[in-house]
Amino acid sequence: MISEFEIIRRYFTRRARTALLGVGDDGALIRPRAGTTLAVSTDMLLAGRHFFPDADPEKLGHKALAVNLSDLAAMGAEPRWALLAIALPRANGKWLAAFSKGFFRLARRFGIELIGGDTTRGPLAITITAIGEVPAKLALRRDAARAGDDVWLSGATGEAALALAYLKGRVKLGGRAREACLHRLHAPEPRVNLGRALRGLARSAIDVSDGLLADLGHIAKASRVAAEVRWEDLPRAEAIASCQNKALAKECLLAGGDDYELVFTAPRSRRSEVEAAARKAGVSVTAVGEIVAGKPGVRVRAAGGGTISARRAGFDHFA
Amino acid sequence: MISEFEIIRRYFTRRARTALLGVGDDGALIRPRAGTTLAVSTDMLLAGRHFFPDADPEKLGHKALAVNLSDLAAMGAEPRWALLAIALPRANGKWLAAFSKGFFRLARRFGIELIGGDTTRGPLAITITAIGEVPAKLALRRDAARAGDDVWLSGATGEAALALAYLKGRVKLGGRAREACLHRLHAPEPRVNLGRALRGLARSAIDVSDGLLADLGHIAKASRVAAEVRWEDLPRAEAIASCQNKALAKECLLAGGDDYELVFTAPRSRRSEVEAAARKAGVSVTAVGEIVAGKPGVRVRAAGGGTISARRAGFDHFA
Repeated sequence: MISEFEIIRRYFTRRARTALLGVGDDGALIRPRAGTTLAVSTDMLLAGRHFFPDADPEKLGHKALAVNLSDLAAMGAEPRWALLAIALPRANGKWLAAFSKGFFRLARRFGIELIGGDTTRGPLAITITAIGEVPAKLALRRDAARAGDDVWLSGATGEAALALAYLKGRVKLGGRAREACLHRLHAPEPRVNLGRALRGLARSAIDVSDGLLADLGHIAKASRVAAEVRWEDLPRAEAIASCQNKALAKECLLAGGDDYELVFTAPRSRRSEVEAAARKAGVSVTAVGEIVAGKPGVRVRAAGGGTISARRAGFDHFA
Repeated sequence: MISEFEIIRRYFTRRARTALLGVGDDGALIRPRAGTTLAVSTDMLLAGRHFFPDADPEKLGHKALAVNLSDLAAMGAEPRWALLAIALPRANGKWLAAFSKGFFRLARRFGIELIGGDTTRGPLAITITAIGEVPAKLALRRDAARAGDDVWLSGATGEAALALAYLKGRVKLGGRAREACLHRLHAPEPRVNLGRALRGLARSAIDVSDGLLADLGHIAKASRVAAEVRWEDLPRAEAIASCQNKALAKECLLAGGDDYELVFTAPRSRRSEVEAAARKAGVSVTAVGEIVAGKPGVRVRAAGGGTISARRAGFDHFA
């Protein structure tokens, strides 16, 4: 049996490059670069709730880090460091090698160092704390949307939820649509470069982890404004557009979690700058609505002018 | 049923005082004060492994934060901020109120702000990330012990392990000893003030979470030195001294985890300064051994000069 310390040494220790002290002490030592502040976020992923217990460990290593980087992206922060606390049912070398491969491949892509963590035995659970840098005044927050702002969405929502519906046998998916949806669910791409490119440009931002309406609702509530989404303007991934179960497609589009796109607001006068920033970041963005004065909340408007009702706004772990 | 967001609002949201942005966004924003670096540590506590599933929630809130503060103490860092990721089997308002009471009472004592976290549903699990400040050059590390250093221990070890043995029915404990041991197990006191007072004075430090020999062994290994502990000089809490099961008392003293004392080394020339620092911090310290040149490891010396063997050095989650 591999010991706890051997697990850390073998699978989770890389030499610190930018941290003053990395893995192997009671804590790590880090310092933000001049002119920046640290953005810090933590997410816990549990087997059986956030992923299937038999999930591909390499993809799981990617996803566990990706969902945390998505939070930093939504702050406009540049990812720098991460801490990984993991509970494992047993010390399985093959599983650990694959998990750490997926984790470190994504970490390398964004220049992130693993600087500490905790390893224990128990039902598979992963908590990652991600730390990034952003100049305080340029950080993208939830509470700064204003009436008149456009509402923007990167990529498209719904594929991850559609993949989950497929895995639960609620819908059939053809080859290409299935691959796209499963990839989105298991290996989401955090919109880090877009978040950074939106510094000083977007007024507010959040990542879509609970569902488009729910997360846009968080912006509306924190900013004390109302948000309107134009149903016809919502971008549809091929799998959503071609889905025969229209009610399911709608639910996925509006309330499906786990896509890790960014929804953000920006002054209408800066529309072309937003488009240029997105091109630079290599991500498509679509203006899908606007912020208006009124009671905090989100409305979905049909082309004809009516309101479309959403059965369920988003995910709540205790609902 | 209380919603996830209501749980956060009701039990875990306090106004940010020193953070630039606290609970409620994708991430928090913090900045270390001039001349300091950030010390960051994370610990995961699982029901059934680190605590009993029916543990008193108020004490659990205290302990979950205390074990993280203990890591910062062992770095000589001043605690500033914490993030709390928690999985709950259900949203129980009474439990949450008690847990947050215990958490925030300890947080207030050390001036810590809760700046973020994650709330999800699942088997009870708590991951806290604690962030403190320390001037980089004064941080207490594991890898800086030198031959000739004294080995010091704060307080005394063994009570938490003896409490566990008592709860498992392995030993009987009288009233006062039982209270002392259970208090130590359920509500350990992080040696934060001692850690800070040892800056620039101790050469190396670690907190005793896995057991005295195991944790001192980490210092020895990282510093490439040997450590000798004088059996007769080890301080004994009353419950350990009066324990009739001498083998158990010895195991608790040398290999019992969860005490959260500090074991540290300092040059012999600074003995009186160490004692003064401990007095200032209000904690007793005892010189229990010394660092010598040799193969990294820990030896326990009897008064007569022989070596005392320890059956088990400390805790390993995968052993």
